[in-house]
Amino acid sequence: MANQLGSFYRTSTFGESHGYAVGALIDGVPGNLEIDLKRIQTWLERRRPGQSALTSPRQEKDLLVALSGLQNGRTLGSPLCFAIFNQDQKPEDYAHLEKVYRPSHADWSWEKKFGIKPQSGGGRSSARETIGRVISGAVAEQVLEAFGLSLSVVAWVDTIKDLRANVKNTPTRGEVDQSVVRCPDPIAARAFETLISDVKKAGDSVGGTIQCLVSGIPAGLGEPVFAKLEAELAKAMLSLPASKSFEIGEGLGATFMLGSEHNDGFTLKEGAVCPESNRHGGVQGGISTGHPLAFRVGFKPVATLGKEVDTLNQEGQPVKIEAGGRHDPCVLPRAVPIVEAMAYIVVLDMFLAQKTREIP
Amino acid sequence: MANQLGSFYRTSTFGESHGYAVGALIDGVPGNLEIDLKRIQTWLERRRPGQSALTSPRQEKDLLVALSGLQNGRTLGSPLCFAIFNQDQKPEDYAHLEKVYRPSHADWSWEKKFGIKPQSGGGRSSARETIGRVISGAVAEQVLEAFGLSLSVVAWVDTIKDLRANVKNTPTRGEVDQSVVRCPDPIAARAFETLISDVKKAGDSVGGTIQCLVSGIPAGLGEPVFAKLEAELAKAMLSLPASKSFEIGEGLGATFMLGSEHNDGFTLKEGAVCPESNRHGGVQGGISTGHPLAFRVGFKPVATLGKEVDTLNQEGQPVKIEAGGRHDPCVLPRAVPIVEAMAYIVVLDMFLAQKTREIP
Amino acid sequence: MANQLGSFYRTSTFGESHGYAVGALIDGVPGNLEIDLKRIQTWLERRRPGQSALTSPRQEKDLLVALSGLQNGRTLGSPLCFAIFNQDQKPEDYAHLEKVYRPSHADWSWEKKFGIKPQSGGGRSSARETIGRVISGAVAEQVLEAFGLSLSVVAWVDTIKDLRANVKNTPTRGEVDQSVVRCPDPIAARAFETLISDVKKAGDSVGGTIQCLVSGIPAGLGEPVFAKLEAELAKAMLSLPASKSFEIGEGLGATFMLGSEHNDGFTLKEGAVCPESNRHGGVQGGISTGHPLAFRVGFKPVATLGKEVDTLNQEGQPVKIEAGGRHDPCVLPRAVPIVEAMAYIVVLDMFLAQKTREIP
Amino acid sequence: MANQLGSFYRTSTFGESHGYAVGALIDGVPGNLEIDLKRIQTWLERRRPGQSALTSPRQEKDLLVALSGLQNGRTLGSPLCFAIFNQDQKPEDYAHLEKVYRPSHADWSWEKKFGIKPQSGGGRSSARETIGRVISGAVAEQVLEAFGLSLSVVAWVDTIKDLRANVKNTPTRGEVDQSVVRCPDPIAARAFETLISDVKKAGDSVGGTIQCLVSGIPAGLGEPVFAKLEAELAKAMLSLPASKSFEIGEGLGATFMLGSEHNDGFTLKEGAVCPESNRHGGVQGGISTGHPLAFRVGFKPVATLGKEVDTLNQEGQPVKIEAGGRHDPCVLPRAVPIVEAMAYIVVLDMFLAQKTREIP
Repeated sequence: MANQLGSFYRTSTFGESHGYAVGALIDGVPGNLEIDLKRIQTWLERRRPGQSALTSPRQEKDLLVALSGLQNGRTLGSPLCFAIFNQDQKPEDYAHLEKVYRPSHADWSWEKKFGIKPQSGGGRSSARETIGRVISGAVAEQVLEAFGLSLSVVAWVDTIKDLRANVKNTPTRGEVDQSVVRCPDPIAARAFETLISDVKKAGDSVGGTIQCLVSGIPAGLGEPVFAKLEAELAKAMLSLPASKSFEIGEGLGATFMLGSEHNDGFTLKEGAVCPESNRHGGVQGGISTGHPLAFRVGFKPVATLGKEVDTLNQEGQPVKIEAGGRHDPCVLPRAVPIVEAMAYIVVLDMFLAQKTREIP
Repeated sequence: MANQLGSFYRTSTFGESHGYAVGALIDGVPGNLEIDLKRIQTWLERRRPGQSALTSPRQEKDLLVALSGLQNGRTLGSPLCFAIFNQDQKPEDYAHLEKVYRPSHADWSWEKKFGIKPQSGGGRSSARETIGRVISGAVAEQVLEAFGLSLSVVAWVDTIKDLRANVKNTPTRGEVDQSVVRCPDPIAARAFETLISDVKKAGDSVGGTIQCLVSGIPAGLGEPVFAKLEAELAKAMLSLPASKSFEIGEGLGATFMLGSEHNDGFTLKEGAVCPESNRHGGVQGGISTGHPLAFRVGFKPVATLGKEVDTLNQEGQPVKIEAGGRHDPCVLPRAVPIVEAMAYIVVLDMFLAQKTREIP
Repeated sequence: MANQLGSFYRTSTFGESHGYAVGALIDGVPGNLEIDLKRIQTWLERRRPGQSALTSPRQEKDLLVALSGLQNGRTLGSPLCFAIFNQDQKPEDYAHLEKVYRPSHADWSWEKKFGIKPQSGGGRSSARETIGRVISGAVAEQVLEAFGLSLSVVAWVDTIKDLRANVKNTPTRGEVDQSVVRCPDPIAARAFETLISDVKKAGDSVGGTIQCLVSGIPAGLGEPVFAKLEAELAKAMLSLPASKSFEIGEGLGATFMLGSEHNDGFTLKEGAVCPESNRHGGVQGGISTGHPLAFRVGFKPVATLGKEVDTLNQEGQPVKIEAGGRHDPCVLPRAVPIVEAMAYIVVLDMFLAQKTREIP
Repeated sequence: MANQLGSFYRTSTFGESHGYAVGALIDGVPGNLEIDLKRIQTWLERRRPGQSALTSPRQEKDLLVALSGLQNGRTLGSPLCFAIFNQDQKPEDYAHLEKVYRPSHADWSWEKKFGIKPQSGGGRSSARETIGRVISGAVAEQVLEAFGLSLSVVAWVDTIKDLRANVKNTPTRGEVDQSVVRCPDPIAARAFETLISDVKKAGDSVGGTIQCLVSGIPAGLGEPVFAKLEAELAKAMLSLPASKSFEIGEGLGATFMLGSEHNDGFTLKEGAVCPESNRHGGVQGGISTGHPLAFRVGFKPVATLGKEVDTLNQEGQPVKIEAGGRHDPCVLPRAVPIVEAMAYIVVLDMFLAQKTREIP
């Protein structure tokens, strides 16, 4: 569905970049669970612009308002509607873009589809839409905990352009957030910072890849055939703005291996049979194995540039645009919590699906 | 949903490798359309085993039977149910595997999920399930034609292990099918064949990537936010057995480019504004642009090997298994029509979604 | 789905009686349509309490706020989120009910399901939830108009207890709204008023039936088998608070007729074959015939009484409650626009479904 | 969805009256459950024609074939596909109807929708489609048992035309099946038989109502707002061929009562608070209370008559048709197991929904 994700834990996001509000409507949460709004707000802080010199200077406090579904901090079992009322909208920054198609944005294709061009800031296609996703992921984290499942979901920036981090062990979220580029390898982090800073000065932009590990996931999640766990993850990740690739386990690397190299053998762990290694990336036949989910997502360089760009307007006339609006030269540091949020959403959906099979 | 794909053109597949039948139930097709069953059968010929020395010798004729939805070759508007009655099942080939977990197959994870192990041939996780997908893709092709949309969907094997084809222009399906490895570059095709043949002799297996181009798609398909065209494609492709990666447009390559290099500018074509180049791979903001959809899918080497393998059985005892069952040393040549079929399914679903917006 | 209706035109409602806001999230609306918010507000006026001495004195202005999906009054194609911020909540009126189960309300069953009891005013089960439905119906009306379909949807109160109106011709909405009880038969209207007024004075409540006619609907809407037009209408109507019965066409009356009496013959109208009479109520085999949809909905007497009532509290102790909260002695007059709204929602959903079958 | 019911326990039916097969595809069943096919076959015997002189003489054995999802009688967790291959089709009986619109059948409206007229026997709109529903209900019964829930679902014919049975206590299914008209009141049963027999001789048909009681249902099932338990039941029942009304609890009778008469008070049962009486029919606020679900469904007289009827053909010419095809003068006796089957399907769907909320 266009604006909805999930069959059991169902998230609808709403809102445009420069409208009244953005938010999420979340259905499928059990009743009588405590939801800590401060923890959701903390997630939003990690996503919001203005965190560092490398991100968009748009100054939004992104204050969470709960419109429905809670009574004294506990879920009623009814839909949770959360809104962030837009504040620092400055549509005047975008006035000069009203009739202009920005290259490699969704302005033009949106108009082709819906017969109307969002006048400013990308409307619904703005990265601001991801606020609703982060809220939903933050709720999913707490719902999973209520079910007794404390996942560790950690993503980090693994490559920027042709620079690559060297991360051996699973980092903590704290280690990731230590650097403004969200890379737990300090040497790579500095190199990433320098590169992004240089690219920004040149009025250009840059992409890279995010690696994500989900530990603590039980075996048996994921639906065979179409709703394989990796298929739902791939959909969730490719639905993020600017994402261009998804890999599970060894990913593209698997295509270079022989079957005898790639296969994971079985071993005994506390008397139980289970896969010995995790080249499979936590899923076999679309079903989780208990090994960490390991996947990576590639993001293209942001389409908005910090320099004058030639393009066409709605009348087909050549125009020059300058990036008056606020934007990031590199989307990846802020995409880290969004990737994590999407992982929580997908896992909770699959977890609830599996609950329907629990014979007492 | 577990065994169903699509919101508007809805495909459910059913059946296990060694059961009574496999097939597809298809809903959402308009009435009074002519459906040519012979064309569907031709698709099945391209998918079926036993096509060459490089594929599984399982000899299935895979004869299509239409159980419902047709009257004198025309659709009634009711669900189309197609079945292939299994014939060359030989479960005795798999009898020695009844209690054994084959490495990197779905035997073990299926049992973890459902509490029962398919006794032979992978059950529902067998590649035989993809018969239903191919049937549905073949129907989708004809339905799109009835709507006046003659897509050209062509996929081919682009890499095998570290060998890469050199394909400059979009090949025809005929050019692809000329070689048993389904690669339109004759030099690469020969190299692929030799490699696969050698790997087979060594009792091993090998993976690679498939490139797919969808031409003739109108601008405006794909749903913003969660059901982006590339997101639905990613899900469809990652739901295929053995697939490990998905890339749209420049894919991972985009992560190495600057924004100024990757952006596609606008141009005028017969007076209308449209993107000049197609680094975006046919989608912007999740919506098709009219440029060909360009994506690639990576497949791991097949888990079944042609040599003795050490593993564990359900009691946790070490056992040795030989690949008595029939299998392919490389899944890619037969995966080509399956990738194409999935592309048809996704595009038709998005096409029908867009029809709900046509204001007269 | 719990809080969502429709497959093509999808309405989610949210909010509790005494929470921050109630509203609707609506997806599936084409882009570039003009939406007149004043017309939606007019619908809300017809639904809101405080309209007459016979309805709840709760004084809510129910002012519509559009949170998303609109740009200068035109749809963007993205989800429309509408909220009504609650104002006249007076939860103190319900403080004495915090631990009490009100007879024949949802307090007790909600707690059984979700493990938590809404403390006041019924929470999500309050009739206040229907605000979102009315908003969605009012939007559906305008969307149908944009598609060139000007339906006439008129409902009225046909019976109150054992009093019955005598309505020969389809009334206009104006004729219905002339009386505070929303009955176009002036004699019956006066009788209804007197009865409801007497019942109110006695601290009691009363039910009845609403008749609805949908004219202008084209033939061919409604999905055969499970999503028959009458089946979706039945679901929509039985999902309304206090509704207990649904009849299509002759309804229960049909069970007293012979087939030869009930059957509708065919005739020629401007050269085209069509049913002559409309005992079928506008649907045959689940599909609309072009004749007006004719259905009726029965509502039980409101559970909240205006006098002291014996009940039990959460500890199982007998308590006496007085209806301190504001309520209607008869739900039917205010249910009229809600029934109409639901009819619009169902018809638009079926209309969009049918658009996917339009071969050019 | 057109041919699919349920969000958690999902049933798709397929097949036309005179096609190759009819059947059901069922998804959402846990793995490793034993399914007794003989019990399903027994359900089919209760539905099939040719049971008595009062039902259609069409002689179908309706032998169940399991195409997928089972291994040695146990579920694999994959979709269960069941087919009945049509045998006694006799399309020649319908040859004279090929271009004729039968009054009050779906021939004409189907053609309006899909642009094609099923040539014989009603195609998909035939009561033969309900075979798939009965299969699914019979599976649902066994799945509920596996979850430890042994419901008692008993329906019976309560009225035929203006004759009414007198049933004080909940009958057993055996008591119901004792009479060919499926009425547990022997006096009424004889009167029903005589009436139907007379009507049949007169070449006419007759309708009536079926009452259904579902005992053993736990409190807490049913989703608030749109997917109320009674709303889903209403949809399921109004999706049955020939059904025209649905009532829950006191139904229409509730509209004649005062609130003080209709309200159910609370009492203590083994120390727990619960409703004392069951005027509510087993649901409050859309959620089950633990009291038996009590509902009734009205069916119109069958449209097919046993005498010559005037109608029009596709060219608009008047023609006379005789009911050469086989049909029932009264649909109700055979509808009893279908109503029961639909109740099982709806309850299982709601039961699985509720399982997603079980916090350990």
